[in-house]
Amino acid sequence: MPHIALPEGLQGIRAAMAFRPETAGPLNQLAEILLHAPNSLSPGERELIATYVSAQNDCYFCQSIHGAIAAASLGDDEAVVRQVKTDFMQARVSSKLKALLTIAGKVQRGGKYVTTEDVADARQAGATDMEIHDTVLIAAAFCMFNRYVDGLATWQPVNDELYRERGKKVAREGYVAMSREYLPEEAHAG
Amino acid sequence: MPHIALPEGLQGIRAAMAFRPETAGPLNQLAEILLHAPNSLSPGERELIATYVSAQNDCYFCQSIHGAIAAASLGDDEAVVRQVKTDFMQARVSSKLKALLTIAGKVQRGGKYVTTEDVADARQAGATDMEIHDTVLIAAAFCMFNRYVDGLATWQPVNDELYRERGKKVAREGYVAMSREYLPEEAHAG
Repeated sequence: MPHIALPEGLQGIRAAMAFRPETAGPLNQLAEILLHAPNSLSPGERELIATYVSAQNDCYFCQSIHGAIAAASLGDDEAVVRQVKTDFMQARVSSKLKALLTIAGKVQRGGKYVTTEDVADARQAGATDMEIHDTVLIAAAFCMFNRYVDGLATWQPVNDELYRERGKKVAREGYVAMSREYLPEEAHAG
Repeated sequence: MPHIALPEGLQGIRAAMAFRPETAGPLNQLAEILLHAPNSLSPGERELIATYVSAQNDCYFCQSIHGAIAAASLGDDEAVVRQVKTDFMQARVSSKLKALLTIAGKVQRGGKYVTTEDVADARQAGATDMEIHDTVLIAAAFCMFNRYVDGLATWQPVNDELYRERGKKVAREGYVAMSREYLPEEAHAG
């Protein structure tokens, strides 16, 4: 049961966002820019970073929904999502993404764990400064989203099909558009 | 030296925000709503939560600037800021704020550490569901901000007077207004 009186029938972060639409606005905008907006990293690659960090933080809701969005963005490739969560060095992803996932894993433990060598390795594999920046901020942001979702003890139904369906919709429409389902119109204006 | 080519002469998160104004917009809006906008928790109380979490995460920049904003908001009371960072149970703050700081400390370690008893204690001390929500989200957000600032190895000069002066300005003007100093105008429109 959630720690506070959240609206019923909404899973994970959606219940928290419906409870507090004022903060939901910037949170959805941040997710939209980091994960869905045009970027030299594909949406699938960025969602894999979000999924990996959420798995490291043991957040069931976030790793399920972002894993589903990642799979949908990568041509329904659920196997690569599982592999990234288990041991990304063995996954069928680029060496650049492996280097960025290494940085993301360090950020998950704490910002100071990222070393000059981690960053040099990512550059060597072709990562730009902007891609390194976005990796750090995606990993940091999921240390927030994961704690928000679990710190309120939100409802997180175990239902693969539900996350699969929502994952396809978010992959297609993005975060701000999807949030119109449960947020009042003014929360999109800011 | 920062891990990526950040603009020079800006401390901590300001350099990262100037590098990526698209994400700086929602980040400043989130800080504005959580810490500066009208709320049943005073700005000083909310800044103490942010400062405590930043100290637990060992982020020099964030604990210095938010500690300075907290002190400015509390009538230049730097002693209470130091005491909250060291041992908040002995600080001259309300029992409600002590219960909320306990929740914030759990969120800093991970969302699942927050217990039903922690939340019951906060309610017993007079906290509302909205105050508990905002405490969880402030603590979660600083797990992001701290990792963003340290994960990029931003420049963090050791200079108490600099943070004291900026703390007074942010306490007075808020986050979105202050960000106009280093962000292009379009980053405020979103």
